[in-house]
Amino acid sequence: MTDYTDIQYEVNDPVALIRLNRPEKLNALTYHTLGEMRDAVNTATNDPAVVGIVITGNGRGFCSGLDAQTLTEVTSSGGAGRREAQDPNEVPGMFTYLLDVPKPVIAAVNGVAAGGGLVLATMSDIRIASTAASFVTIFLKRGLIAEHGTSWILPRMTTPGRALDLLWRSERIDAQQAHELGIVEFLAEPDDLLDRARGYIEELAASSAPLTIADTKRLVYNHLGVGYREALREADKVQWDAVARPDATEGAQALVEKRQPNFRRLGAE
Amino acid sequence: MTDYTDIQYEVNDPVALIRLNRPEKLNALTYHTLGEMRDAVNTATNDPAVVGIVITGNGRGFCSGLDAQTLTEVTSSGGAGRREAQDPNEVPGMFTYLLDVPKPVIAAVNGVAAGGGLVLATMSDIRIASTAASFVTIFLKRGLIAEHGTSWILPRMTTPGRALDLLWRSERIDAQQAHELGIVEFLAEPDDLLDRARGYIEELAASSAPLTIADTKRLVYNHLGVGYREALREADKVQWDAVARPDATEGAQALVEKRQPNFRRLGAE
Amino acid sequence: MTDYTDIQYEVNDPVALIRLNRPEKLNALTYHTLGEMRDAVNTATNDPAVVGIVITGNGRGFCSGLDAQTLTEVTSSGGAGRREAQDPNEVPGMFTYLLDVPKPVIAAVNGVAAGGGLVLATMSDIRIASTAASFVTIFLKRGLIAEHGTSWILPRMTTPGRALDLLWRSERIDAQQAHELGIVEFLAEPDDLLDRARGYIEELAASSAPLTIADTKRLVYNHLGVGYREALREADKVQWDAVARPDATEGAQALVEKRQPNFRRLGAE
Repeated sequence: MTDYTDIQYEVNDPVALIRLNRPEKLNALTYHTLGEMRDAVNTATNDPAVVGIVITGNGRGFCSGLDAQTLTEVTSSGGAGRREAQDPNEVPGMFTYLLDVPKPVIAAVNGVAAGGGLVLATMSDIRIASTAASFVTIFLKRGLIAEHGTSWILPRMTTPGRALDLLWRSERIDAQQAHELGIVEFLAEPDDLLDRARGYIEELAASSAPLTIADTKRLVYNHLGVGYREALREADKVQWDAVARPDATEGAQALVEKRQPNFRRLGAE
Repeated sequence: MTDYTDIQYEVNDPVALIRLNRPEKLNALTYHTLGEMRDAVNTATNDPAVVGIVITGNGRGFCSGLDAQTLTEVTSSGGAGRREAQDPNEVPGMFTYLLDVPKPVIAAVNGVAAGGGLVLATMSDIRIASTAASFVTIFLKRGLIAEHGTSWILPRMTTPGRALDLLWRSERIDAQQAHELGIVEFLAEPDDLLDRARGYIEELAASSAPLTIADTKRLVYNHLGVGYREALREADKVQWDAVARPDATEGAQALVEKRQPNFRRLGAE
Repeated sequence: MTDYTDIQYEVNDPVALIRLNRPEKLNALTYHTLGEMRDAVNTATNDPAVVGIVITGNGRGFCSGLDAQTLTEVTSSGGAGRREAQDPNEVPGMFTYLLDVPKPVIAAVNGVAAGGGLVLATMSDIRIASTAASFVTIFLKRGLIAEHGTSWILPRMTTPGRALDLLWRSERIDAQQAHELGIVEFLAEPDDLLDRARGYIEELAASSAPLTIADTKRLVYNHLGVGYREALREADKVQWDAVARPDATEGAQALVEKRQPNFRRLGAE
């Protein structure tokens, strides 16, 4: 636990838990909040005690997107001040850096995920949604476009037509609908949500090598943008590097000895 | 209403309605029909009274594809005459220009969509299908390949395997099956179909800025072919241009004042 | 039937059937098995009596992936020997050459498809699964990554998140779950599986020109990696070549004469 004001951060090996902690604002994002999030994710990435990251919201909401006051300032200034106001590493795209984090990021969606909150959910790798969760793009209702990579990821989670529909109309959908559309991988009862998300990381940590989890995440996202010839060449290279690592020997040994494998952690190097 | 012979065209702000009007031929397409369609779509694109375009068929069919006589002429001539016979803007790909139209195109699929009719439906952005609608690729049964971009769009609406199956076997599927496969976004009772399609555009016109609808459509289709890094760079640029537009200020103001936003129309420039 | 030891190969026009035949090992793959598979697929590709290929497993399993002894040898040697041990045409990627085979490949999945067996199923064009089938990625449990193109194809069959989940956790899913996720196109009762797979090819052979089946397969896989402008240009070229072929005239004639078309076979040239 560090001295963050807008979030809470805790590590219980193998899980880092980031809680958005502005419940009275449904965890709306200010630039300060975004900075704390980025810092916590970096800390988790570099911590070998962390195999995966869970992100959730305190209170009723998951994340209601950019804070209304911040949004008004940005648009009334024609966006002029925004670039200067933040770390250049944070653009292009709010939360899009999560795609490059070499550890699993699980969104434990406890309530409404709107605008930037939907970005946070969709840039996470896996979404476990409480039955009390809901999802809405909201950008176009504010005069804005499909921001921060939602135009890239949503059509790959569902179909181009359904993605356009969600982006154009800003209809609010519930967790069950989001699950049917492909935007949510798992549903959970509200009281079970955090245990499910933590358990997901614990299961991964017990079974799979962190280096191979990272390789696989990188390949999956890279390969969404290329043809199979290019993808197969990249996969082949990464695959043979993996075969030559001690984790592969350990995986085969554990299989023969019918025991849990003991893989190298990521973040210590 | 203009002096078209094969289609009917009418505008009731914010909707342009194009009706294929050769019901006795299940709205089969001749080159003349294709020319009228293209002209009507261009007119709608340039008309600020039009926020979105609805395409439907008169009579029992939506569109049965290329007229049998036209098809025989094209194939028996080895395709020799076809290129000369049409506007060079219409190739490559029948109806594929719809992907570049900066306004929503809604296919209100009232009956069978076969061959070129399936192309028309799948090159539209959103498909609302009557429960009386059906879909069939038909190309391969005619000795032809997956034409006019169906090899690109169908695997993104459903899966590669299901797309291959639909293209290879030309099985006719009903509206419910098409909905389950991801090829149809909404189902409607036959009597409600046109009201649903018009209502869709009316809802969009009341909530979302036409410029952002156009930007979002362009980004979604562009981003289906690229990786996330390239997509995020393009989205970032378009996003900041949008933030600097009056529509963004109006969107934020309308939110604060709890009123409907009043956005700029597209087509007047 | 040739003198293979690890597989059985038989042709009954229009179907080539390849049976993995190491049932006591759940059809685990050695390099020898892989070589026989490649040889049989090449033979079928070049045989005009073959319109499509069905691959299945003898006994309880479909294919349990790389043989445990082979896997141990590869990983304990750091992968050093593997490249030399096989035909250079077989890399990168086990079974990935199936994507380039110009004939339909149907996986008739009779039992467990694990690791390399899952690769075999997912690199086939269509999967018909017995209700007794199951699917598991298994790579990461062995210290390996998502190998042989699974990082490319799985996110296109289902969603990026569900693909990551299957790859990361190696959960075993049954045929019904795989069907719901988009990984299996058709379900069959165990006793009907081979008849369904053979019937699929027979139906194709009766209705669709082999050259157009091949063109359509090539376009679908190529177009998964490119944007629509590039895809439409390629489709346009292939389409006009197809229109100029005798099969297109035959297709149109058969339509007029209300008879089955008689298309040219592939493999004799």
